[in-house]
Amino acid sequence: MDLVTGGAGFIGSHLVDALVLSGKKVRIVDNFSSGRLEFLSHHDKNDNVEIINCDLLDLEQLKEAMKGISHVHHLAANPDIRLGTEITDTDLKQGTLATYNVLESMRINDVKNISFASSSAIYGEADEMPTTEKYGPNLPISLYGASKLASEALISAWIGTFGGIGYIHRFANIVGPRGTHGVIFDFIHKLKNNPNRLEVLGDGFQEKSYMSVRDCVDSMLHLIENANESVNLYNLGTGDTCSVRRIAEIVVEESGLENVSVEYTGGKRGWAGDVPKTFLNVDKLLSTDFKPTRMSEETIRDTVMQLIYEIGLK
Amino acid sequence: MDLVTGGAGFIGSHLVDALVLSGKKVRIVDNFSSGRLEFLSHHDKNDNVEIINCDLLDLEQLKEAMKGISHVHHLAANPDIRLGTEITDTDLKQGTLATYNVLESMRINDVKNISFASSSAIYGEADEMPTTEKYGPNLPISLYGASKLASEALISAWIGTFGGIGYIHRFANIVGPRGTHGVIFDFIHKLKNNPNRLEVLGDGFQEKSYMSVRDCVDSMLHLIENANESVNLYNLGTGDTCSVRRIAEIVVEESGLENVSVEYTGGKRGWAGDVPKTFLNVDKLLSTDFKPTRMSEETIRDTVMQLIYEIGLK
Repeated sequence: MDLVTGGAGFIGSHLVDALVLSGKKVRIVDNFSSGRLEFLSHHDKNDNVEIINCDLLDLEQLKEAMKGISHVHHLAANPDIRLGTEITDTDLKQGTLATYNVLESMRINDVKNISFASSSAIYGEADEMPTTEKYGPNLPISLYGASKLASEALISAWIGTFGGIGYIHRFANIVGPRGTHGVIFDFIHKLKNNPNRLEVLGDGFQEKSYMSVRDCVDSMLHLIENANESVNLYNLGTGDTCSVRRIAEIVVEESGLENVSVEYTGGKRGWAGDVPKTFLNVDKLLSTDFKPTRMSEETIRDTVMQLIYEIGLK
Repeated sequence: MDLVTGGAGFIGSHLVDALVLSGKKVRIVDNFSSGRLEFLSHHDKNDNVEIINCDLLDLEQLKEAMKGISHVHHLAANPDIRLGTEITDTDLKQGTLATYNVLESMRINDVKNISFASSSAIYGEADEMPTTEKYGPNLPISLYGASKLASEALISAWIGTFGGIGYIHRFANIVGPRGTHGVIFDFIHKLKNNPNRLEVLGDGFQEKSYMSVRDCVDSMLHLIENANESVNLYNLGTGDTCSVRRIAEIVVEESGLENVSVEYTGGKRGWAGDVPKTFLNVDKLLSTDFKPTRMSEETIRDTVMQLIYEIGLK
């Protein structure tokens, strides 16, 4: 049986879908801080899907949940990078300490395989673009990025010390249906609140890679079959980028709204800890014969249409 | 006033000596888990040296200790790398969480400068020798290494989010007087217990760089004056290596003992999580016009002589 932490969340619920489709039994652990039961409601009648309401900081409950598991997909985390500028222990607890508890409960239950959702945020402001997995030093500038790098290090150390196999995925920006945060989500909510004005944090020239959530979970499962190190570390992304200005344009276009004034707060970053440009080199992923079905702008437009529907802007 | 966490420990007490010599006022925070008051006894009558018995996990007491500080030298940590194979939360608490508390108490008190004792352990089993600061990915294989990388990431994220200046020092093996752990310390204690037999963990072909503790603290202070980034990351070492077999030879020679049977437990590493070979590229340090006074073998022989005296083998 596979265990998905954060399985009721945005990426987690899509991973559950993919695992179920491949015939796996799945146990979900989620504290429903940002996850939602409705993201899993289509599995209500499926005996292969089990949901446990558990916070990963509860080590005793987690040890119980780990029984009978062969592979852990550890996706639970605080999804709101910006929150670290205000509350400094959220990423420490929901990121680093949660990962420690996952690994410790795996060790005690002799569970040997873990896939982990890391992030391009670990690269901080890299001076090599596109950025390969070999780039260093890794100097994240957000508390979220620090918790992801700390979690990578814990996984690597656990495997080096106690054995096992790890898959560390450094995600680009992942977007798609059921999105609960991020720039597209924010823009649509802003237009819902005020159809005449769209405030963009920063100068809008921030530029990042966007990967469809379905390509993301497909590549995660592809790598379990096709990567053969004890620690398998891969950038997951599309190999191109899109600017925040272009995203704002697409959101306004797809909203059908007219006379929207797009206003920029200025400065090269949206908030302290925001990395103005991220661009992952994904050659290593492509070398395993995985090809994303959508590039950045296409998946942004798909997502805008889906979230406009989900959020109810139209 | 400067604050030294772990200031009663091996490296910390030498740093306190150097700071005092340069005319600084110094506050020491130590929980005396491995630090010793006797390492500071020569400062007993010096009003410029203040000692606070405080565990870094006590955030409230640490916030108090941070008042009036302009530069933090964060050296406190669990010094016993091997311990992580048995107790999995020591490095998490005494490393990662302690660093979080140091940074949070700095933020609250508006303290902007931090030097941090990181380690070559963050490189794990690097496939580039000598290893530069740009080497990646960083996949530590010990829980100690994971806590050092997590702490680096926290410092970088704090500076990226809240401002400040950081000096991250990736130490080679640091040796010298007042050593409380490590291979030389262990060998001398073993010979004290049994003068006929010296057990060496692993095959003895493990090979690492050894830097004198005085060169180490001198280079730390040199970099504060000579490095000008917001995050200044430097390998600290000597640019050469010495094998464990050679260390065993030197210990036996200097002990004056005859008929010592040196026995190897075999295997390429001393324990799970031991990195068989570490060799830091220190060109970046040398480029700041710092030159270590001693290379590895010379500083090992000095240390052997000093610790034979301190431990009382002769």
